[in-house]
Amino acid sequence: MAHKIYILNGPNLNLLGKRQPEIYGHATLADVQADCKALAGDLNCEISMHQSNHEGEIIDMIHHARVDGAGIIINPAAYSHTSVAILDALNTFDGPVIEVHISNIHKREAFRHHSYVSARADGVIAGCGVDGYTLALRHLARLLNQ
Amino acid sequence: MAHKIYILNGPNLNLLGKRQPEIYGHATLADVQADCKALAGDLNCEISMHQSNHEGEIIDMIHHARVDGAGIIINPAAYSHTSVAILDALNTFDGPVIEVHISNIHKREAFRHHSYVSARADGVIAGCGVDGYTLALRHLARLLNQ
Amino acid sequence: MAHKIYILNGPNLNLLGKRQPEIYGHATLADVQADCKALAGDLNCEISMHQSNHEGEIIDMIHHARVDGAGIIINPAAYSHTSVAILDALNTFDGPVIEVHISNIHKREAFRHHSYVSARADGVIAGCGVDGYTLALRHLARLLNQ
Amino acid sequence: MAHKIYILNGPNLNLLGKRQPEIYGHATLADVQADCKALAGDLNCEISMHQSNHEGEIIDMIHHARVDGAGIIINPAAYSHTSVAILDALNTFDGPVIEVHISNIHKREAFRHHSYVSARADGVIAGCGVDGYTLALRHLARLLNQ
Amino acid sequence: MAHKIYILNGPNLNLLGKRQPEIYGHATLADVQADCKALAGDLNCEISMHQSNHEGEIIDMIHHARVDGAGIIINPAAYSHTSVAILDALNTFDGPVIEVHISNIHKREAFRHHSYVSARADGVIAGCGVDGYTLALRHLARLLNQ
Amino acid sequence: MAHKIYILNGPNLNLLGKRQPEIYGHATLADVQADCKALAGDLNCEISMHQSNHEGEIIDMIHHARVDGAGIIINPAAYSHTSVAILDALNTFDGPVIEVHISNIHKREAFRHHSYVSARADGVIAGCGVDGYTLALRHLARLLNQ
Amino acid sequence: MAHKIYILNGPNLNLLGKRQPEIYGHATLADVQADCKALAGDLNCEISMHQSNHEGEIIDMIHHARVDGAGIIINPAAYSHTSVAILDALNTFDGPVIEVHISNIHKREAFRHHSYVSARADGVIAGCGVDGYTLALRHLARLLNQ
Amino acid sequence: MAHKIYILNGPNLNLLGKRQPEIYGHATLADVQADCKALAGDLNCEISMHQSNHEGEIIDMIHHARVDGAGIIINPAAYSHTSVAILDALNTFDGPVIEVHISNIHKREAFRHHSYVSARADGVIAGCGVDGYTLALRHLARLLNQ
Amino acid sequence: MAHKIYILNGPNLNLLGKRQPEIYGHATLADVQADCKALAGDLNCEISMHQSNHEGEIIDMIHHARVDGAGIIINPAAYSHTSVAILDALNTFDGPVIEVHISNIHKREAFRHHSYVSARADGVIAGCGVDGYTLALRHLARLLNQ
Amino acid sequence: MAHKIYILNGPNLNLLGKRQPEIYGHATLADVQADCKALAGDLNCEISMHQSNHEGEIIDMIHHARVDGAGIIINPAAYSHTSVAILDALNTFDGPVIEVHISNIHKREAFRHHSYVSARADGVIAGCGVDGYTLALRHLARLLNQ
Amino acid sequence: MAHKIYILNGPNLNLLGKRQPEIYGHATLADVQADCKALAGDLNCEISMHQSNHEGEIIDMIHHARVDGAGIIINPAAYSHTSVAILDALNTFDGPVIEVHISNIHKREAFRHHSYVSARADGVIAGCGVDGYTLALRHLARLLNQ
Amino acid sequence: MAHKIYILNGPNLNLLGKRQPEIYGHATLADVQADCKALAGDLNCEISMHQSNHEGEIIDMIHHARVDGAGIIINPAAYSHTSVAILDALNTFDGPVIEVHISNIHKREAFRHHSYVSARADGVIAGCGVDGYTLALRHLARLLNQ
Repeated sequence: MAHKIYILNGPNLNLLGKRQPEIYGHATLADVQADCKALAGDLNCEISMHQSNHEGEIIDMIHHARVDGAGIIINPAAYSHTSVAILDALNTFDGPVIEVHISNIHKREAFRHHSYVSARADGVIAGCGVDGYTLALRHLARLLNQ
Repeated sequence: MAHKIYILNGPNLNLLGKRQPEIYGHATLADVQADCKALAGDLNCEISMHQSNHEGEIIDMIHHARVDGAGIIINPAAYSHTSVAILDALNTFDGPVIEVHISNIHKREAFRHHSYVSARADGVIAGCGVDGYTLALRHLARLLNQ
Repeated sequence: MAHKIYILNGPNLNLLGKRQPEIYGHATLADVQADCKALAGDLNCEISMHQSNHEGEIIDMIHHARVDGAGIIINPAAYSHTSVAILDALNTFDGPVIEVHISNIHKREAFRHHSYVSARADGVIAGCGVDGYTLALRHLARLLNQ
Repeated sequence: MAHKIYILNGPNLNLLGKRQPEIYGHATLADVQADCKALAGDLNCEISMHQSNHEGEIIDMIHHARVDGAGIIINPAAYSHTSVAILDALNTFDGPVIEVHISNIHKREAFRHHSYVSARADGVIAGCGVDGYTLALRHLARLLNQ
Repeated sequence: MAHKIYILNGPNLNLLGKRQPEIYGHATLADVQADCKALAGDLNCEISMHQSNHEGEIIDMIHHARVDGAGIIINPAAYSHTSVAILDALNTFDGPVIEVHISNIHKREAFRHHSYVSARADGVIAGCGVDGYTLALRHLARLLNQ
Repeated sequence: MAHKIYILNGPNLNLLGKRQPEIYGHATLADVQADCKALAGDLNCEISMHQSNHEGEIIDMIHHARVDGAGIIINPAAYSHTSVAILDALNTFDGPVIEVHISNIHKREAFRHHSYVSARADGVIAGCGVDGYTLALRHLARLLNQ
Repeated sequence: MAHKIYILNGPNLNLLGKRQPEIYGHATLADVQADCKALAGDLNCEISMHQSNHEGEIIDMIHHARVDGAGIIINPAAYSHTSVAILDALNTFDGPVIEVHISNIHKREAFRHHSYVSARADGVIAGCGVDGYTLALRHLARLLNQ
Repeated sequence: MAHKIYILNGPNLNLLGKRQPEIYGHATLADVQADCKALAGDLNCEISMHQSNHEGEIIDMIHHARVDGAGIIINPAAYSHTSVAILDALNTFDGPVIEVHISNIHKREAFRHHSYVSARADGVIAGCGVDGYTLALRHLARLLNQ
Repeated sequence: MAHKIYILNGPNLNLLGKRQPEIYGHATLADVQADCKALAGDLNCEISMHQSNHEGEIIDMIHHARVDGAGIIINPAAYSHTSVAILDALNTFDGPVIEVHISNIHKREAFRHHSYVSARADGVIAGCGVDGYTLALRHLARLLNQ
Repeated sequence: MAHKIYILNGPNLNLLGKRQPEIYGHATLADVQADCKALAGDLNCEISMHQSNHEGEIIDMIHHARVDGAGIIINPAAYSHTSVAILDALNTFDGPVIEVHISNIHKREAFRHHSYVSARADGVIAGCGVDGYTLALRHLARLLNQ
Repeated sequence: MAHKIYILNGPNLNLLGKRQPEIYGHATLADVQADCKALAGDLNCEISMHQSNHEGEIIDMIHHARVDGAGIIINPAAYSHTSVAILDALNTFDGPVIEVHISNIHKREAFRHHSYVSARADGVIAGCGVDGYTLALRHLARLLNQ
Repeated sequence: MAHKIYILNGPNLNLLGKRQPEIYGHATLADVQADCKALAGDLNCEISMHQSNHEGEIIDMIHHARVDGAGIIINPAAYSHTSVAILDALNTFDGPVIEVHISNIHKREAFRHHSYVSARADGVIAGCGVDGYTLALRHLARLLNQ
């Protein structure tokens, strides 16, 4: 049976491809979803992708992932740096978690260098653009298919 | 007339008893509510218990408590450490406020040692497990029945 | 054509005029709206005013402003000090942004001295009470009518 | 057989009820002892209460508690913030430890926000006035009578 | 009788309009004075404007304002960040004080984020260019004409 | 009636005049006592001088001063830098307190620059050698004889 | 023509697979090289892999990559946290650079959270085990084959 | 021959007795001068008293004191906390220097706790009101008449 | 004549061998004394060993060592990290001082990494268990017998 | 035509050669001026040398240099460490600026390690004694004669 | 069979006995080797002593010790304070490690107070001069011969 | 006899003139050597110039300079900021040391503002481009030819 992978996206990512393309590139979240779905079949995975600007909704999504999710790919965006609540939600999840950042957060403002989510994530991929999502998916599949 | 006590619970507490029992124990929020209701009658109090994963909803609840609440027991969970907005909401409330943490936050990661809510709370009870709620209720009742 | 100005208000400002008047004064948000509307006509502006206790809703509002807003006046209240997500939302907006604080945040607790929003705002007005909104409107109009 | 509970009190608490009643209230340490004794019988506990202004004597008392004590309630007062030696003494004790502060130390000067003892205590109760002692006793009894 | 408003300007502001126009704009201090004088009559105010590169002279000016000044608008420029002496001088003045910065100091080097003067100022206006002076004047007039 | 002045001396001051004379000089504590007694009569004061190496005993002495002391001169020596308990004891005393340091603690190691006692002391005299005691006595007398 | 990719490995990585397998896994550097070579052909790349315990030799290798390298994958290991010299060497290289860490450095000691190399790297992949090398290779190939 | 003592006063002290009497008392600088002159004769000293709001003038005064001054009493006021230049000027003076603060700077804002001048001063007297000047004079006389 | 060596032990070391043997081992202080006495004869030394939980008593012991002690071996235990008073006492002693810690304090909590006593000690031996005492004795003897 | 070089000297440098020769040497400012004038002719430069103890006057001098100065050599002395105003003045100057310190400020007190002026200076020469002025002149000439 | 002990020495220790004898004494590394060899036989140990100025070579030596070493005595000298790579190398070694410093690093510059190696070392001996090597050898032997 | 001057260059300086010319200019290290040799004869000096990317080799070079070097000019490049070992090596050298940086390190990233070598260097020249080497040589010659 295919592993269900939740791909969760934080605030302002609904504008991906439309805002600040010099930082975030031109691909939209729909493009990301299409790329991941295309790859998922070969990797024995299925994709459930979501985005919200609300911290509480991201927590709710993680709670849903506890029910039937095998792994989580999460781009917490700005909430990476400020949300202990999302960290705590991820701490209630038993499967592997990969954190993705489209830009290299370590080259930006100092307050973006720290991510609460990294204290829980198994892997962290930053600065590889939207390519980071498919890299995360490949790694997650390798862990789940072992 | 009985004093109306709001018991407000922050993010991930809907999973109480289900997640990380080595930290948070096996009692659920429903168990807590039952314990508090059982005790409230003897103390001339009535209980109004709520939980939300949304910071904004917790603020809304505190605003409701301004209308008819005599006291607040709040376990802000992860928002303790990051929410100035909840602190500001509590600053609009005139009655006594008791802050409860199930675990002893001072024995955990450094970022859990500071609570914005403590700057407003009258009393703080941490590390007594779900027992903390009934202890808080006893103390609140003593203050309100003086 | 009139410039559409979004006036966005953060958590607990629905209680403006009702809570802690020694800090925030007696005018309500409705009064502020009335004052701004009265002034807007002369300045070739129209006003769209909103308030929310939810960080995510404020982000949504900023995204709406991207569609038809010429400028933003924002009083992020407590989220000033904690929200990278609102900063990121404002970074997707191209027009001028004025940040307003009713109280002088630099005279209050140390954690209120820093505002993430200030890293994006063009102008910052603090401590002028609700007068700050009309001052911001005047300045925004000058920028837009140049 | 009743559980022997040591209630240990740190410097200046001999003046409780006499000094700064706006912070510490009007009850004396004798009142606290009477309240605890009255409650102890119902909880299958007996009380051994002590106070000292000397850090070394508090360490000695904790060493005595190692011999026949089932649990410790400790209000380390000013030594909370400066005494690694008391922390080390408590680390030699196997039973549950509850730390009590009469005032809410988190609302006072910054140097009172940190307690070395909290790194060892199972529970911490602050800001509930002398009520904190009986709350601590109730919780300790629940732990010991399980 | 008209309220006498002192408008005090700190170091290097004699070069306003001539130096770094990308930061400070093209208006000169004489332009600012003209704008403020034009506005002052309608607001029942009169203007007394001064500039000095000497910290001591700015202190002297504030002492003069104690004699016949109803309010002070001060742009302390670089001395904002380093002068406790100007803060102390302002602490001897009883009327309202508005601090103006032409640029948004919060978007510049970290050492410009803190202003000693803000600890005394009633209002702070930054980043509104020379417009900040007339905004400050409007607010001061509103306070004085109440 | 003469004002009773407690002169309290902290750890290692029993060796005054014998240890490190390049820092502390050659006068002994007995010399200090003699100087103070000689001066006290003219100032309508009497002297009660004590020294201890024990933090707890210094607290006890301050508690005694609460009974019949009009003022306290205290040289807390090393405990200045580490004792919240002595600060708390002084906070229970209503009369004037003058803190004396024989050496100028601000020219020595960084950890000697901060004194908890200074948060309570009315006056602080440092670096005037044993002369500091008589200067303190003169000032205390002026306060008490007003 | 195939893109030449330098894969550079820092101190102690010669022991990969032999030391602390609970942190670093069981694969050796030779295994990594084999995996990368197997993948490189499909991606129009060729691999030049090196390891050294000497900071100076890693700098030399980067200088060699300036001559004929199209991209660099670097696992600087412990030198990530201490070597400005390797950062400076990478700053002389014009092609894309991907930084790889086998473990999630953000979950380990605080001094491992900061990497000087991240200030230059285009992408950073941490905590994906030796899988990180092939993920980096895929991303590098995508950048170079665009 | 009498020892010439310079008594130098920093910014805003020209307002002594007129500003913030709850902090600084009611005595003026003229009163201080009179008190010191009255005492100086008995102590074989003569007084040369000055005040300036200008950092540069205080430096000039210290340079004058190098010519004929036997000792310096300095109340650097706000410049204590910010002036390395005054410290350097005092470092060119060979005689004893006593630093005086009218208020206890250690009980005020944190930025007043540090004085650059204390790194050079032989003695420091704070919080004794204007009495501090005559205490300083007594101590200086004792040093000079030895 | 034999050199008299004081071996001074701080708080909780009376429990050595009984508390937390996984950190401190199974040897008691009596065992340490026996080992040291056995070795002392060969090294032309005699041993005077003491333990106290009281900071003041440790200071008193150091003062005794000033009278007839040739060297001091001190294990200040928890007071290492908090006692300036013991440092000052040791500063009054002219002979060599060796500081001993049974555990390697640098591998434990951050607050144990700093020892005030190390600023005075000639040598520091940590983490060698009770063996540290005899190593210290050997080194002290070498220094004294030179 | 010769390049006009302003050589500006900060507080206490009027005493150069007279104060603390172990730090600053025996050459006076007049000697420095003579050396620079002697060298200037060969380098197609002319010298305009000034000194002031007043921060404001140094700013005025820099404003003069804006009129006809080709380059500035500045030894800001103590104002290096405290004056944002001098930094701002230099930011209004377009030509090259060389900062000179007679002593090596990095070997002295920590507060001398940072210079605001260095954020603007093109070159910084410290610790070469008065030789630093002629070295700066040589470098400035090379830049101007290119 | 004898235990093979590696004694590894870091940068500049080749000059031991020749440089700064007031800090490091007059014994050379050859003397140290001779002393250790003389002692080793009695302790059932053999010695393999090395020195390098190259961080990479010290890592190589530790890797050699993994092959046949029973224990390591390491004086990392300056690399103590800066080398995570040596710490990581030691983390690959299973036997006991004793860290030796000839001088008491806690009495020297602040940057010498922290040693990365101490996070791995079993024991740390500092300030005992070259005697530290034989003390370390004695302790290592005791551990290995248990 | 000519004074032998070692000119030592740290990591990446072999690429001088080839990498990042906007920071480091177009002159190569060979050009620097030629300039210095041309100047050296007139100054009674001879030049021995070296470069290495290896920290250990730079230490070795400094040890060679101890044998026959009269002075050292060192551009430690990136090792300035991280190498205590080079500082220690320079501390073994008795002659004058001048530290050169091609760029003004104080205008670059914060981690480049501190140089360990500056704690030993007699003079520091930064931001004068490769001109800094000849300026350093002139100053060194003046010191040596005195």
